[in-house]
Amino acid sequence: MVRRAIYPGSFDPITFGHLDVIERASQLCDELIIAVADNSAKHPTFSWEERIALIQESIGPRASVKVERLTGLLVDFAREKDAHLVIRGLRAVSDFEFEFQMALMNRRLHPDLETVFLTPKEDCTFISSRIVKEVARLGGDVRQFVPPIVADCLHKKSFPQP
Amino acid sequence: MVRRAIYPGSFDPITFGHLDVIERASQLCDELIIAVADNSAKHPTFSWEERIALIQESIGPRASVKVERLTGLLVDFAREKDAHLVIRGLRAVSDFEFEFQMALMNRRLHPDLETVFLTPKEDCTFISSRIVKEVARLGGDVRQFVPPIVADCLHKKSFPQP
Amino acid sequence: MVRRAIYPGSFDPITFGHLDVIERASQLCDELIIAVADNSAKHPTFSWEERIALIQESIGPRASVKVERLTGLLVDFAREKDAHLVIRGLRAVSDFEFEFQMALMNRRLHPDLETVFLTPKEDCTFISSRIVKEVARLGGDVRQFVPPIVADCLHKKSFPQP
Amino acid sequence: MVRRAIYPGSFDPITFGHLDVIERASQLCDELIIAVADNSAKHPTFSWEERIALIQESIGPRASVKVERLTGLLVDFAREKDAHLVIRGLRAVSDFEFEFQMALMNRRLHPDLETVFLTPKEDCTFISSRIVKEVARLGGDVRQFVPPIVADCLHKKSFPQP
Amino acid sequence: MVRRAIYPGSFDPITFGHLDVIERASQLCDELIIAVADNSAKHPTFSWEERIALIQESIGPRASVKVERLTGLLVDFAREKDAHLVIRGLRAVSDFEFEFQMALMNRRLHPDLETVFLTPKEDCTFISSRIVKEVARLGGDVRQFVPPIVADCLHKKSFPQP
Amino acid sequence: MVRRAIYPGSFDPITFGHLDVIERASQLCDELIIAVADNSAKHPTFSWEERIALIQESIGPRASVKVERLTGLLVDFAREKDAHLVIRGLRAVSDFEFEFQMALMNRRLHPDLETVFLTPKEDCTFISSRIVKEVARLGGDVRQFVPPIVADCLHKKSFPQP
Repeated sequence: MVRRAIYPGSFDPITFGHLDVIERASQLCDELIIAVADNSAKHPTFSWEERIALIQESIGPRASVKVERLTGLLVDFAREKDAHLVIRGLRAVSDFEFEFQMALMNRRLHPDLETVFLTPKEDCTFISSRIVKEVARLGGDVRQFVPPIVADCLHKKSFPQP
Repeated sequence: MVRRAIYPGSFDPITFGHLDVIERASQLCDELIIAVADNSAKHPTFSWEERIALIQESIGPRASVKVERLTGLLVDFAREKDAHLVIRGLRAVSDFEFEFQMALMNRRLHPDLETVFLTPKEDCTFISSRIVKEVARLGGDVRQFVPPIVADCLHKKSFPQP
Repeated sequence: MVRRAIYPGSFDPITFGHLDVIERASQLCDELIIAVADNSAKHPTFSWEERIALIQESIGPRASVKVERLTGLLVDFAREKDAHLVIRGLRAVSDFEFEFQMALMNRRLHPDLETVFLTPKEDCTFISSRIVKEVARLGGDVRQFVPPIVADCLHKKSFPQP
Repeated sequence: MVRRAIYPGSFDPITFGHLDVIERASQLCDELIIAVADNSAKHPTFSWEERIALIQESIGPRASVKVERLTGLLVDFAREKDAHLVIRGLRAVSDFEFEFQMALMNRRLHPDLETVFLTPKEDCTFISSRIVKEVARLGGDVRQFVPPIVADCLHKKSFPQP
Repeated sequence: MVRRAIYPGSFDPITFGHLDVIERASQLCDELIIAVADNSAKHPTFSWEERIALIQESIGPRASVKVERLTGLLVDFAREKDAHLVIRGLRAVSDFEFEFQMALMNRRLHPDLETVFLTPKEDCTFISSRIVKEVARLGGDVRQFVPPIVADCLHKKSFPQP
Repeated sequence: MVRRAIYPGSFDPITFGHLDVIERASQLCDELIIAVADNSAKHPTFSWEERIALIQESIGPRASVKVERLTGLLVDFAREKDAHLVIRGLRAVSDFEFEFQMALMNRRLHPDLETVFLTPKEDCTFISSRIVKEVARLGGDVRQFVPPIVADCLHKKSFPQP
C-alpha cells in the first residue's frame, strides 16, 4: 500500500521553514502532496499559480513530491487523493493550540485521517511567511529565510519597477 | 436576592459549545441573560436579529434564560440588568489569556462584577463559530457542531439559491 | 435549594490569594466548604490541623463558610456534602492546563459536579504558598502576602527557637 | 526498507491514552517498538517487568508491535534497532514545550532520528498515568481510563490484602 | 560610550502600561528613543504625528528620552542611531511568543542588537491600546488606563462633535 | 554611577546556554555578578564550590564579571551589592510564567530592583542543566552543550572510577 501524505498550507510564499518540513515529511511517506490552499478570503500576496510555481522551483523535480491547489475541505481532498496522513510543522505554543483544534476537527470530519506534527530545525523556528514579507516590504534582505527565487519575487512585489 | 448572570458573546452563530456552556451556566444562577454583542466593527456573518433568533430556536422557550442585544459596554449592561456574574467558556490557553485580561479590565470598570469561567465538554473544545463557518463555506457537513436550524442557515449563507 | 460549593486545596499555608478567592466564591453560593487536602504523599509544611486553624483564624467566624479536612476523592466528598460546585482560582497559563485536566477528570467521575474558575485580584497573581514559604525560609518579610498569624507561624517554622 | 518507529515512555501504568497513540502510531510504520524507560531515579509505581507485562496484556499479541525495556539513551536505542522515527503523544501546551525541547535535543544527538507528534482522542486528553494513580489511591474507579487488568493491579497496589 | 536603547511600538495610543515600561527602560540606558512605527498597512486610529505628540505630552520634556518616527526596519533604524538595545514589555504568554520570534529575527538581521524584555507593573498587565480604544468607543471611562490628554483625544475620536 | 547586575541561578552545572546569557548580560552593565544559589533543599549534583569553580574555569578571568555564592534572598543580596538589575534568560513559555511571577515578587520585596529578560541563541533554547545531566548519566556525549571541563566533571560524576 502506498503511504500518501498531504502537507497543506498557504505557502504565501514558501520559506526555508516549509522546505525543512517537506524534507522531513518525505521520509515519512512514499508520496507527498503539497496542497496550496486557495482561499480567496485570505487575500494572499501571491496568487495560487505563483505560490505553486515558487514551491516547484524551490524543491526542483521530484518523483515523490507533488504540488497541487486546494480549494475545498482538506478532508475531501484527502479522500479524493486516498491520503491518510496530514503533515503540519509546529514551531510555537500558539501554533500548537490552533493546530490541535484543526486536527481534532479534521478527525471528526474524517476519522481515518491522521495529523502528524513535525518540528522544524531550531534555526527556522522564528521564520514565518508573514514576518518574511514584512521584512522584505521594509527593504530588508530575506535571503537567509527563503530560496533566492522567492527573495527575488518578494523584492519585486515590494519595490515594483516603473 | 435573585442571582442574575450574563453570558456575553458574538454567537455568530451559536454552536454546541455555546449550548453546553448555557446549560452549565443555568445551574449557577436564577436567571441567565445571553447577551449578543452587536459590534458593527466585527462584520458578523449573521445580523444580530438573526443571531438572537438562532439562539432562541436552539434553546427553546425557557423562563430563566433571556436573549438580548448588547450594544455598549458589558459593565454598563450588567449595571442596568442588576447582574453580578459574567459567564465565559474556556477551551484553550489562548482563550484563557484574552479572557483573563478582559476579566481584569471589567473588574476595574465594575468592581462588583465577577467573571466565572466554565469548561465545556471535552468533545466541544475544538468547536468555534469561526471554524464551523469555514467548514460550512467549503461544503462540509456541520450538523455535529451546531443545531440543525443553524446548519441550514449556514448552508444557505454559503450556497445562496438563485 | 441550598447552593453549596467546595473550594479544595492544600492551603499550606493560606495566602491573600486564597482569601481573595474565598471572598469571591462566597458571592456565588449560599454555603462554601473550604476543603483542606490531607495528602500524606505531599509532605506539607503544616499539618492539616494547623492548616485548618490558620484558615479559621484568617477568615474569622462566618456562618456560611466551613473549613473541613479532605482525605479521599474530591468527587466523593462533594457527593457526601451534596455540593455541586467546585471553585478554583486561576492565576496563570500553567495553572490553567492542570486545572482544566482536573476539571475534566472530575466531571467524568461525577457528571453533575461543575468546576468554576475565578480570577484573583491582579496583585495576588504572583502569590503562591510555595514561593511565600521560600521567601520566609530565607528570612524575607511575608506580611504583604499572608495574614499576620500565618506570617508568624512561617517565621517560627523557619527559625525555630531553642 | 522497513519503517520502524519507537514509542518511548514510562507507561507507569499504560492508559487508554497510550493505547490510542499506539493504534495511531501503528498506521505510520511497519514495526512499532514500545520502549519502557527503566529509570531508577524516577521511582516508578510498577517495576519495568510489570509495566511491560501490563502493556503486553493490554495490546494482545501482534506481529508488528514489540515491547522492550529502555535503559540508556533513546538515540542509542534507536541506532541499535535501526529505527528512524520516535512517536510522542501531545495533549497539552505544557506537554508540547517539554517534548519540543526533547525532540531538538535528540535531533542534535542523532540527526536522522525524526520525532513525530500525534494527537490522542479528545476524550483521552485529560488522562495521565499520574492522575489515574492518584484516583486509584483514593479509592476511585479507574476502569474508564485504563484496561481492566491495569485497574485490577492499581487496586491491589493501593489496597494491599493482608 | 553612550548606552542608547530603542523602545519601538505602535503607541496607538500610549497607555500607562507603555509609560511604566518607559520609566523602567530609562534606568537601563543613557538615552532612550521611543520609535513610533508608521506602518500604513495597520490603519492606526491616530496618525503618527498625533501619536508622537501624545507621547511627548505624556512624558513631558526630558533630556534623555526622544520620540521619533520609525518607517523602515527596526534593525536599520538601530544602526542609523548607533543603538544596541531594543526594549520590549512582556505582559502575557501570547506576547512572549511573538516577541521571542521578533527578537530572534532581529538578531539574525543585526547580530549586535540585543532585545531586553521588561515586566510592567502588575496593575498594567491587562492594559493594551486595543482594549482601551474599545472601551472608549463604547463610552467607558479610560482615565485609569491612559493619561488625561489621551483620554480626551480618545473621547473626541469616539464621539466627534458636529 | 556603576551599573551593576546580578545573574542568579543554580548553574548545576553551567551550560552553553548560561554562557550565552553571560555574554549578552555583560553588554548591559559595567559589572556582572553571577550569583550561584546554594539552596540545600534542592540537592544539587555539584556543590556550590564546584559550581563556582566550573563557572570561573568556563569564563576565564574577567575584570567585570564576578562569581559569588548566594545563600539568602536575592533582594537582600542585591541591596548588599548595590545592584539594581537582575538578569534572567528566557527560553520557553513555561520559563516565562515562573520568571514573571518571580520578577513581580522580587519587585514587591525591592521596588528598585528591575528584572530584565534576555533571549539566548536559538541553538541553546533546548539546553538545560537538567537535561544535560540526564544525557551524561546515560552515557551520551554532552560536549556540544557544555564546556569541556564541565563535560569531564559530568562524566566523572556519572561513571566514578573505582
